Amino acid sequence: MNYISELETFIPKERVSTNITILEQHSKDESYHTPSLPNVVIYPESAEEVSQVMKIASKHKIPVTPFGVGSSLEGHVIPLNGGISLDFSLMDSIIEVLPNDFLVKVQPGVTRSKLNQELKKHGLFFSVDPGADATLGGMAATNASGTTSVKYGIMRDQIRDIEVVLANGTTMHTGNLAAKSSSGYNLNGLFAGSEGTLGCFTELTLRVYGIPEMIVASRATFHSIDSAINAVVNILSAGIQVARIELIDELSIKQVNKFSDTNYDEMPTLFIEFQGNEAGLLQDIEFTKEILADLDNHAFEFEKDTQGRNKLWGARHNAAYAFKHGFPGKQLMTTDVCLPLSELAGAIKSAKKVLKEYNLDGGIVGHVGDGNYHTTLMIDTENQREVEYAENYNKHIVEYALERGGSCTGEHGVGIGKMKYQVLEHGTALPVMQAIKKTLDPENILNPGKIFYDE
Amino acid sequence: MNYISELETFIPKERVSTNITILEQHSKDESYHTPSLPNVVIYPESAEEVSQVMKIASKHKIPVTPFGVGSSLEGHVIPLNGGISLDFSLMDSIIEVLPNDFLVKVQPGVTRSKLNQELKKHGLFFSVDPGADATLGGMAATNASGTTSVKYGIMRDQIRDIEVVLANGTTMHTGNLAAKSSSGYNLNGLFAGSEGTLGCFTELTLRVYGIPEMIVASRATFHSIDSAINAVVNILSAGIQVARIELIDELSIKQVNKFSDTNYDEMPTLFIEFQGNEAGLLQDIEFTKEILADLDNHAFEFEKDTQGRNKLWGARHNAAYAFKHGFPGKQLMTTDVCLPLSELAGAIKSAKKVLKEYNLDGGIVGHVGDGNYHTTLMIDTENQREVEYAENYNKHIVEYALERGGSCTGEHGVGIGKMKYQVLEHGTALPVMQAIKKTLDPENILNPGKIFYDE
Repeated sequence: MNYISELETFIPKERVSTNITILEQHSKDESYHTPSLPNVVIYPESAEEVSQVMKIASKHKIPVTPFGVGSSLEGHVIPLNGGISLDFSLMDSIIEVLPNDFLVKVQPGVTRSKLNQELKKHGLFFSVDPGADATLGGMAATNASGTTSVKYGIMRDQIRDIEVVLANGTTMHTGNLAAKSSSGYNLNGLFAGSEGTLGCFTELTLRVYGIPEMIVASRATFHSIDSAINAVVNILSAGIQVARIELIDELSIKQVNKFSDTNYDEMPTLFIEFQGNEAGLLQDIEFTKEILADLDNHAFEFEKDTQGRNKLWGARHNAAYAFKHGFPGKQLMTTDVCLPLSELAGAIKSAKKVLKEYNLDGGIVGHVGDGNYHTTLMIDTENQREVEYAENYNKHIVEYALERGGSCTGEHGVGIGKMKYQVLEHGTALPVMQAIKKTLDPENILNPGKIFYDE
Repeated sequence: MNYISELETFIPKERVSTNITILEQHSKDESYHTPSLPNVVIYPESAEEVSQVMKIASKHKIPVTPFGVGSSLEGHVIPLNGGISLDFSLMDSIIEVLPNDFLVKVQPGVTRSKLNQELKKHGLFFSVDPGADATLGGMAATNASGTTSVKYGIMRDQIRDIEVVLANGTTMHTGNLAAKSSSGYNLNGLFAGSEGTLGCFTELTLRVYGIPEMIVASRATFHSIDSAINAVVNILSAGIQVARIELIDELSIKQVNKFSDTNYDEMPTLFIEFQGNEAGLLQDIEFTKEILADLDNHAFEFEKDTQGRNKLWGARHNAAYAFKHGFPGKQLMTTDVCLPLSELAGAIKSAKKVLKEYNLDGGIVGHVGDGNYHTTLMIDTENQREVEYAENYNKHIVEYALERGGSCTGEHGVGIGKMKYQVLEHGTALPVMQAIKKTLDPENILNPGKIFYDE
């Protein structure tokens, strides 16, 4: 019996699809990476079904690529060698909110906006905000972060437990419900960010937070990128508790103004959010004003109500989409380096200079409190010269970051696009990672061709 | 050539010791575990020397047990099967402070008090405070935490990079200097807490923090443990930013009063520290007062100056030593479970009840903001019945925690004492951990007999 017929013996036919439209939907993500069709899409409804799928895949040595909503930016969900695309959209229950433990248990197909709608009823929220309305399973698999990690940490920091189905079909738990543990090896951290290469996630227990007493968002504009970055360093050094501190360069603000209901000054801008108790927050804002006054600051404006705040963060989140809309027919390539804070200004200046030299369409945004910035490039993937320029540009940026103790990817993951930088970034640690992969997935059926080149 | 002579060909004889006093110093830690002598103690001065040691150990299949200052509470540094004790006390340089990156690079033998003395000059501090003046290498190896993790996180959260020498002598880096990374597998987290079983640490890059504008410590006393724990849950739920929140039961306060310069009320007590900007901190204190007034709170007193604060935290840190001094000839056994916050009150009440039933000498202290508490037991290791009672007591506590989603060890690590609970805690994840161990240390020479039973 072929493996698809075997799958159909225990998964109802309506959840096993070889329809070409469905296959095409599961062949690509939001990025420039070349699509590749799976042979079949399975929609599991339980860990038991995922375990059965893995056992059959293992027996027939069929690749399995997990799929959330396909918002990856590095080709993670593309089934490079065909096989099974495992779509978690039916596993989208919020299993349990535990308000006294500041925890929530969810299935992997729950999106972050759905989770936050539910948590709001309990006065709680989930902190990680990568912009896209990704699934929590996908966010765990790529170790996503975004605008709030400067205060609350990255996806890995929120994970207390993952129920994982391994390559051989075994189900296990990486952690527990306790706030900390020194028992055994830290599998939470190892599986977070493993990009579907070590196992499939079937349940997550995540940390949540109380909604703060007061939230104020603001926009600070500057005459130069340098002043903007200096402001970031000075604000953080002063111990001011910013919850978000985002750089949007003048090119990105221009693009946002075109496609959002905004008319922001087209200058290097910081979007800053303060959170806390009222007295502490107001003191933080006063401090920030003093810091900005000492720099080349153009204006500092506040959004105190929810509507103004949502508009501001909506504009920030739509920056990439604004570029996509602005360059129809072109594909999105996003750089994602992360550097020590002291190297960030130099890195961004160098990136802007080289962007100009290559005459590429794009702009820079950054989670600058973490030293992480993106160049949003719009490229014509049919134009070999443009693709080559974009690749060279990315290479320049990555090498600049790695020479200064940085990482080739702060939050998007390796996927397909960053594999070529793994030797340079990890050196003698790369064989250790590969040995772990080989131990847990000896047949290389879990998302092959991601993170590591096939041997 | 035997392996000790071979070691002496490249490590000067004065740093290779078989002196019996030295061997005895390296045969034990601070706990009740039975000492065991190494055959030789080596004092390396560089990663290169550690690499050479590992190559020789590997060739001759000799066990290697890393040693810091021996403040472990679970027998981690005891060379169960003899072999080499690798003492890192000469690798105690603070290599570089990077104030703008909020980072410091240290050798593993640096103690946390030495590091904090240096950081103070830069207006910075290192947050993890396990009580003992442990080495940072040891703290990384056991994933230590302590009083401050409710605000700043545990040791694993502070680690940006570890230089590790693997079993085969290869040197690698687990991370980099960037605040976040989604590149490759998270080796920082895997090696943190690996208890010397995956590699020897030869350099650490750690996160540091700015000293807050204002720090206020306080003592809140209660008529019952229940009220004290309710206060913790209510304070955390209100979003009050406590930097420490520690429970000390009446038995421990009594012991502390005997051996410290204190005369605290012998009642269930919370030691609470507030940190922040002045306005925010004062608002937090007012909120806390309101919360306590609604409960069965006896008194709430403040220590605003450094001296009073140091005395208070000194008293807390000396709780274990106060028991040691109070029961000469007895050995220390410390339980270390961690539970979801909602289960903590029940756990501590059950622990107190069973402690009374077994009529054991001891008291309870806890990092209650994390759901982590310790029973400090003083046992006569010659008295089989007392040892058995203590083991049964610990077993009761661990099973209670594991049934409720907790961990057998919040911060002390598995070492020797918690190996028997690994199957129950990790289930099908334990073979995954063992497979990783076997892949990275196929001859089982790195601290054998810790975490996992020898096969």
